[in-house]
Amino acid sequence: LICYNPTLTGLSIRDRFVARWNTVAIFGVGLIGGSVGIALRQRGLAGQVIGIGRDASRLQKAQELGAISSYTTHAKEAARAADLAIVCTPVQIIFEHVSMLAEGGSPDLLITDAGSTKENLVREVEDRLPNVKFVGSHPLAGSDRSGVEFSRADLYEDKTVVVTTTERTDPDAVTAVTDFWTSLGANVVSMSPASHDAALARTSHVPHVIASALAALPREDELSLTAGGWLDTTRIAAADVELWRQILQENRHHVATELEQFRKRLDEFRTALIDNDSATITRLLAAGKQRRDVMGS
Amino acid sequence: LICYNPTLTGLSIRDRFVARWNTVAIFGVGLIGGSVGIALRQRGLAGQVIGIGRDASRLQKAQELGAISSYTTHAKEAARAADLAIVCTPVQIIFEHVSMLAEGGSPDLLITDAGSTKENLVREVEDRLPNVKFVGSHPLAGSDRSGVEFSRADLYEDKTVVVTTTERTDPDAVTAVTDFWTSLGANVVSMSPASHDAALARTSHVPHVIASALAALPREDELSLTAGGWLDTTRIAAADVELWRQILQENRHHVATELEQFRKRLDEFRTALIDNDSATITRLLAAGKQRRDVMGS
Repeated sequence: LICYNPTLTGLSIRDRFVARWNTVAIFGVGLIGGSVGIALRQRGLAGQVIGIGRDASRLQKAQELGAISSYTTHAKEAARAADLAIVCTPVQIIFEHVSMLAEGGSPDLLITDAGSTKENLVREVEDRLPNVKFVGSHPLAGSDRSGVEFSRADLYEDKTVVVTTTERTDPDAVTAVTDFWTSLGANVVSMSPASHDAALARTSHVPHVIASALAALPREDELSLTAGGWLDTTRIAAADVELWRQILQENRHHVATELEQFRKRLDEFRTALIDNDSATITRLLAAGKQRRDVMGS
Repeated sequence: LICYNPTLTGLSIRDRFVARWNTVAIFGVGLIGGSVGIALRQRGLAGQVIGIGRDASRLQKAQELGAISSYTTHAKEAARAADLAIVCTPVQIIFEHVSMLAEGGSPDLLITDAGSTKENLVREVEDRLPNVKFVGSHPLAGSDRSGVEFSRADLYEDKTVVVTTTERTDPDAVTAVTDFWTSLGANVVSMSPASHDAALARTSHVPHVIASALAALPREDELSLTAGGWLDTTRIAAADVELWRQILQENRHHVATELEQFRKRLDEFRTALIDNDSATITRLLAAGKQRRDVMGS
C-alpha cells in the first residue's frame, strides 16, 4: 500500500509517497523501538503497531506513551499477524529475536533491525536462516539516554539510516526496508555489512572508547576544573555500559584496527609537542578543524 | 570599595559584598575579555572599563556591544588610569602585555590574566617583573566560538576560576583577584601554577588533542555516518587553531605526559577487545561512566 504523506516537508513530492503497513511488530520498545512506533502512528503509516518484549509493565508504559497500539510477550504470536517486524533489541540478542520472528511469521514477513553492528548479524542470518526475508538496518540516531520515555516521533527525521546489502539480499526486500525508513523521514544509504562496520568503527565506536577513557582521565577532585570541552568530549561515556560492551565486542576487529590508527595520530601529536614543533601541531589541529567544520556545531 | 550586589542570587549574603573598581583595563576584548567587561558594567562593579587592543574598529564594536566604556590602542595610557587590569590575550603574548601594563601603570596597579596555562607565565613574571602586583588567573569558561560578539554577562556565573599562588605571590593581591572573579559570579579555587597546568592537561588539553584526532579519523565521504556521539566528542576540534596551538605548546610537557597515560588506557581497551574480554571491557566502560555521571549532562 502506498500513501501520500504531506508532513514530509523536507522531501520531494515523489518521496512523499510512502509505504503503509497493515501490522508492524517492534521487538524491543526502548528509545529506538519506541521512536519507530510513535513515528509510524503519528504519521498514520501502520494499521497497528504491536510491541514485543519480556516485561509487560514496560510494554504497558510504551502503550500509554503512544509508541505501540498493543503488546505481547509472545514474539511468535506478534509475528503471525505482522507484515513488517523491526528488531530493536541489544546487538548480541538480535539474531535470536530474528529467529523467533521468522519461526512465527508467514514466509512473506519482512524483518529488519536497528543494531549498531551488521557484519556478524547479517552473516549469521544468511547462513542459518537463508529463506527469511531479512535486511539489516542501522539508524544513526540515538542519545546518551535510553528508555521509551525519551522516544520522539522525529528521532529519524533527516537522520542517516544504513541499509545493508550483500549478493544474497532480496532486492525487493531492500526496496521495502528503504521505503520504510524513508517514510519516517530518514535518508537511507546502502552498503555492505563490512563497509558499515569499518566506517562505524571510525565514526562512532572508537569515539566511544575514547570518550570513556577521557572521562576517567581526571582525578575525582579535579572534576571542578573541567569545562565545556571535557563535558562535550566525554558526554557519550555516560551511556549504558552493557549496550556499548556488546557493540564494541561485536565490532572488535574493526575497532581494534582503528584504535591502532588513532594511536599513530596521537603519537604524531605527542612527538610534535615534545619537539615543540609549531608547524606540525598547527597542521594536525587544522586537519581536525577542517573535517569537523564540514558538519557544523 | 566594597558594595552589596543583590544579583548574586547563588551566593550567601556575605559573598554578595563585592569589590568595586574605579577603572578596569581589559587587554584583549574578545569572548573572554568582552564577557568580563559586560559583566562588570551590567553589575555596576566598575566606574569605567577601558578596552585595549591593536585594532580600533574591533574595539569600537566591543564598545557598541556594551563590553567597554572606552578604548585605546595605547596600553600604557590605559594602565596609567587603571586600578585593575586583566590581560585576555592569547597565552604566548600575555607576558609581553603584562610587561607593557606594568611599565605604564602605578606601583599599585593590580594585574591578572585569563590565560589557559600558568606555569611559564607566572615564572616569567616573577623572575623578570618581581615588583609588579600580578596574580595568575584562569577562568574555566569559554566556547568553541570566539569573538566579542559571543560575549555574555553570565559567562563566569557558577564557573570555576583558578587563581594561582606561589611563595612569592602577595596575599593581598590574591584576595583582591579572588574578590574580582567572585563578584562576577565565579567560584574561585587557588593552587600552584604547576598543579593547575598538570590538572588542565587532563581536564582540557588532552581532551582537545583527542577531539582533534577523532575529528580527522573518518574519511570525508563517511561523515554522513556520524551521529550525536561523534558530534559531541569532536565539537571542540572546531575551535581556533592558533589559540590552541599556543595553549598546547605552552603546556607541552604536561600534555605529552598525560597523552602517554591516555595511550596506556587505550592499549588496555584494545587488548581487551582483541582478547574478547567482556569483563575488562565492562570495567573500563563503567569507570568512565562513573566519573562522567558525577558531572551531569
